[in-house]
Amino acid sequence: MDLATALGVIVGFVVIIGTIAYESHGSMGIFFNIPAIAIVGGGTTCATMIHFSMRQFLGVVSVVKKTLVVKIAPPQDSIQKMVNYAAINRRDGALALEQEIPKIRDPFLSKGLQMLVDGADEHHIQDLLGQEIQYMEERHSMGKKILDFMGASAPSFAMVGTLIGLVSMLSKMENPDEIGKGMATALVCTFYGALIANLVFIPMGGKLGQYSKAEKMSMEMIKEGVCAIAKGDNPTLVGEKMQIFLSTKHREAIKAKV
Amino acid sequence: MDLATALGVIVGFVVIIGTIAYESHGSMGIFFNIPAIAIVGGGTTCATMIHFSMRQFLGVVSVVKKTLVVKIAPPQDSIQKMVNYAAINRRDGALALEQEIPKIRDPFLSKGLQMLVDGADEHHIQDLLGQEIQYMEERHSMGKKILDFMGASAPSFAMVGTLIGLVSMLSKMENPDEIGKGMATALVCTFYGALIANLVFIPMGGKLGQYSKAEKMSMEMIKEGVCAIAKGDNPTLVGEKMQIFLSTKHREAIKAKV
Amino acid sequence: MDLATALGVIVGFVVIIGTIAYESHGSMGIFFNIPAIAIVGGGTTCATMIHFSMRQFLGVVSVVKKTLVVKIAPPQDSIQKMVNYAAINRRDGALALEQEIPKIRDPFLSKGLQMLVDGADEHHIQDLLGQEIQYMEERHSMGKKILDFMGASAPSFAMVGTLIGLVSMLSKMENPDEIGKGMATALVCTFYGALIANLVFIPMGGKLGQYSKAEKMSMEMIKEGVCAIAKGDNPTLVGEKMQIFLSTKHREAIKAKV
Amino acid sequence: MDLATALGVIVGFVVIIGTIAYESHGSMGIFFNIPAIAIVGGGTTCATMIHFSMRQFLGVVSVVKKTLVVKIAPPQDSIQKMVNYAAINRRDGALALEQEIPKIRDPFLSKGLQMLVDGADEHHIQDLLGQEIQYMEERHSMGKKILDFMGASAPSFAMVGTLIGLVSMLSKMENPDEIGKGMATALVCTFYGALIANLVFIPMGGKLGQYSKAEKMSMEMIKEGVCAIAKGDNPTLVGEKMQIFLSTKHREAIKAKV
Amino acid sequence: MDLATALGVIVGFVVIIGTIAYESHGSMGIFFNIPAIAIVGGGTTCATMIHFSMRQFLGVVSVVKKTLVVKIAPPQDSIQKMVNYAAINRRDGALALEQEIPKIRDPFLSKGLQMLVDGADEHHIQDLLGQEIQYMEERHSMGKKILDFMGASAPSFAMVGTLIGLVSMLSKMENPDEIGKGMATALVCTFYGALIANLVFIPMGGKLGQYSKAEKMSMEMIKEGVCAIAKGDNPTLVGEKMQIFLSTKHREAIKAKV
Repeated sequence: MDLATALGVIVGFVVIIGTIAYESHGSMGIFFNIPAIAIVGGGTTCATMIHFSMRQFLGVVSVVKKTLVVKIAPPQDSIQKMVNYAAINRRDGALALEQEIPKIRDPFLSKGLQMLVDGADEHHIQDLLGQEIQYMEERHSMGKKILDFMGASAPSFAMVGTLIGLVSMLSKMENPDEIGKGMATALVCTFYGALIANLVFIPMGGKLGQYSKAEKMSMEMIKEGVCAIAKGDNPTLVGEKMQIFLSTKHREAIKAKV
Repeated sequence: MDLATALGVIVGFVVIIGTIAYESHGSMGIFFNIPAIAIVGGGTTCATMIHFSMRQFLGVVSVVKKTLVVKIAPPQDSIQKMVNYAAINRRDGALALEQEIPKIRDPFLSKGLQMLVDGADEHHIQDLLGQEIQYMEERHSMGKKILDFMGASAPSFAMVGTLIGLVSMLSKMENPDEIGKGMATALVCTFYGALIANLVFIPMGGKLGQYSKAEKMSMEMIKEGVCAIAKGDNPTLVGEKMQIFLSTKHREAIKAKV
Repeated sequence: MDLATALGVIVGFVVIIGTIAYESHGSMGIFFNIPAIAIVGGGTTCATMIHFSMRQFLGVVSVVKKTLVVKIAPPQDSIQKMVNYAAINRRDGALALEQEIPKIRDPFLSKGLQMLVDGADEHHIQDLLGQEIQYMEERHSMGKKILDFMGASAPSFAMVGTLIGLVSMLSKMENPDEIGKGMATALVCTFYGALIANLVFIPMGGKLGQYSKAEKMSMEMIKEGVCAIAKGDNPTLVGEKMQIFLSTKHREAIKAKV
Repeated sequence: MDLATALGVIVGFVVIIGTIAYESHGSMGIFFNIPAIAIVGGGTTCATMIHFSMRQFLGVVSVVKKTLVVKIAPPQDSIQKMVNYAAINRRDGALALEQEIPKIRDPFLSKGLQMLVDGADEHHIQDLLGQEIQYMEERHSMGKKILDFMGASAPSFAMVGTLIGLVSMLSKMENPDEIGKGMATALVCTFYGALIANLVFIPMGGKLGQYSKAEKMSMEMIKEGVCAIAKGDNPTLVGEKMQIFLSTKHREAIKAKV
Repeated sequence: MDLATALGVIVGFVVIIGTIAYESHGSMGIFFNIPAIAIVGGGTTCATMIHFSMRQFLGVVSVVKKTLVVKIAPPQDSIQKMVNYAAINRRDGALALEQEIPKIRDPFLSKGLQMLVDGADEHHIQDLLGQEIQYMEERHSMGKKILDFMGASAPSFAMVGTLIGLVSMLSKMENPDEIGKGMATALVCTFYGALIANLVFIPMGGKLGQYSKAEKMSMEMIKEGVCAIAKGDNPTLVGEKMQIFLSTKHREAIKAKV
């Protein structure tokens, strides 16, 4: 679970609700408005369904969930594991790696190891794992595109909702005392749109992009390591080839540990 | 018929009209405003006609209609068919494919098959079908450009209409009771522009882009398959060459079926 | 004369003026406002003069006029003509083409033919006509850039004008009855800016871009044809080389006619 | 001095001030507002100082001044001069060019000539003058970037100023008669920001870009000519090599003159 | 410490506070509003935490601090130092450089020198220092991305805050005298967002970009110099190789000094 995301969402909503409670002196009822939720939520959802295909639209939920829940293994761990596998491969041959596979939770790594066990050659592994990485990137970039579209769509439907409220209110302005209340109700819609876009859709799209970059680097490192093992490199060389992906600071930390 | 698009448009309008009915307590008359429709619809149409040529402007309707109605065949079906054709070609020669053509509904596939029957060589097929794909892409990207322009133009003409309403109302503000009604009428125009742009033009432009990408992949697969048959590849190889276009998940599903 | 542009501008203004007449119940005087015209027109013109050079600024008028008035010959006609010239060249030699030149209205085509008569070789023609095409493109893209800038500038100066009106009105708000009229006058300026930008400048810039693309294709086709004649290709080959620029549909229409 | 720029700025301000005089019926005092000038001018200047370095910030003034005052020599003159130098070089040797240098006002041309006198070879001249051109372009593009930033910053600080005015006015709204005047004062700030950005910063940034392109072409032509002289080309060839930079129209005008 | 940044921030806030003091006739209390600070500050911080990872978010502070405090050595000094090192290397061998390292404050330069002392060859130095430069650029560009995101996020949350204030105020508009005060309080939020974005986040992001470019040039020069020493170039050549990075003006100033 990504801490910054959870913290950001929770603290963000606490700040917003706290301010609402303070500003409205406790009478927060007006900020809870079913038609406003229907317009902003419904409109954005429908526009997203029109823009994308049914499958892409339903896919975004699982992509986002995965981003929030799945933790990318720290690069140091991947290197350490791969160096171990290289040692096993050297000592006992590729078949001995088979008993390591059930212990692995990352399906990408276990796929790579399975190919080693099956005796696939370096270029075949390179191709297949590379395709897997590209496919992951496409799914993530589609998710980011959908979230960005929702972030642009929500404020627009919020405006549609506010306009409906304003027109309704203005068209039967008999009682001037009701003007204030009518405008307040209309503006709640704008508030919903601005809040959901800026606290959820836009930053979640950004996080998905960051997550995709980090996962790509992690997968590229594993691919590099598996290929090195397939080529028969010794454990030290496998580790060095994977370290090229790390920044200087990280690399020194690893050296210190090893 | 694309389900997500149909559902999105229908549910979207139901949500909007439902909110209007709820907010206006049933007196929805003010939301139906002929001059506002004239300004937003007429202005956007005229600006689009000035921006594009007459032929491009009229073409967008047919492109959109096709996007909504024509269903792209699932890649698995295309592969299955092509593997069959390859088997027929192997067994009975290219001429035997002629009786398959009348059964095909996709004009691109039937064109490819006709070329096989006519004995065209691989490079010729590659060139001609490639050109066909490029031409389809250009038509679709022009349609997307027009829809995007309409999505930007509609809110602008909505503002023009609202300004006309406001200026008219303000210039003869004798009866303060009429201010509210006048402003409501003026704002209906802004509402139309925001609604049509965000629920129709912009997401439809996006869907056209998605559709174009999917159709391109489908056509590229068919081109690849026809070329493989022309080269005399065996049915298995034809199927494998076409599967390169599919993601890993899809590919496994196909293997499982075959 | 481009029909879509003329129709778009005329119908567009008819719709706008019709709505004004309807909304203002005939008292349209307030919508005709000299200071507003001065600010929007003058401001946009001055900013454009500062942004571009004097020569570029004056050039945009002629480019736009040409776009509206000059009709690009249909590609079929160009091919037909060029096939004829190729036949004459074959039968009677290049000098016989000289008597065709006075009949030609397109200066680019007549320049190409003159080079054939003068006996210029293929590469020289390619270079010179290519340069001519590039020069045309630069002029058109500068025109598009100026129109786009005017489309962005007009609403800004409209806002400047509206602000002048609002400040003046608010600073001497003795008679509350005059507030409405003052605001109406101020908003007319915003109306002018939005209208001229969205119905004239922005779509005209777009049309210029479309026109430039079409003219480029037409000129490239002529260049290709003239070069083929200079190389001594037979009429059929000249026609085929030019047809490469056309889409499949067009090509079949030509075949049907020939 | 660039005529279009001068005319644009002067006529632009005359139109604005004229409209103000007309709209405010002579009482223009409210449009002259020291705090508004302080916020828009001071805020924009400070933000620019934070964004860029001190040296870049001070450099923009000299770049803009140069753009307005220095006139780029017409290409025909450069060609004529260079043809003369080539003739002198041929007749009397490179050293005879030394007495031409003091007559030259353009430092770039005199640098090129000095290199010829010093006997530098073609490639050395190419490198050094090319570097000089690149350095000029960088300075100009930095100037354009600063002006564009100021054009975006001015309206933002104008909004800040207007908000200060509005909040102050609203927080002590005892006398309703003063509301109008307070709002007018607040809006003057928005007016300043929109005016200065759209009549000065944005179009001046555009002009700097145009000027930079024109100066680059002029310098490239001189570089080409000096290199041709260094290579020992005859005067006619020198002239022809420089004419390649000119459009067809210009070239014919030169031919007619020569 | 960068003078322009410090001056810009301080003068900027002095101008803003001065205008507030003048406009509000001393009663500045309304401009200090805890809930507004909570919404703008808290919302922007939370959205940034969601968008980026925890480590990136915390890293931006140190990057910005470094930009403000660390001064990039003038290129002339770097050249002078490197020429000295080259002379020492020539005279006394690479090991004699070891006693120079403790005197150096720039960690990049001292790393380069250490590699010389260790006898690393040219290509190894090129690779390692090049990687170091790339890593610095990535950190800076991430910092710029975060600041730009905050510059876009702050005005959005300011709007959210203003909407909360407006809705609260409008929903219990019993006392018309309080409307003004309520609106003033609501607008203070918008003011905060516009001010912090335009005076801090956006220009600081720009400055970080400028700083990154300058630091990159300085590091590239040092890399070039260290490589030249490793290759055994004489001091004059080392100086010349480094001067290629400088503009003509700078170069002449250095020649004059040397």
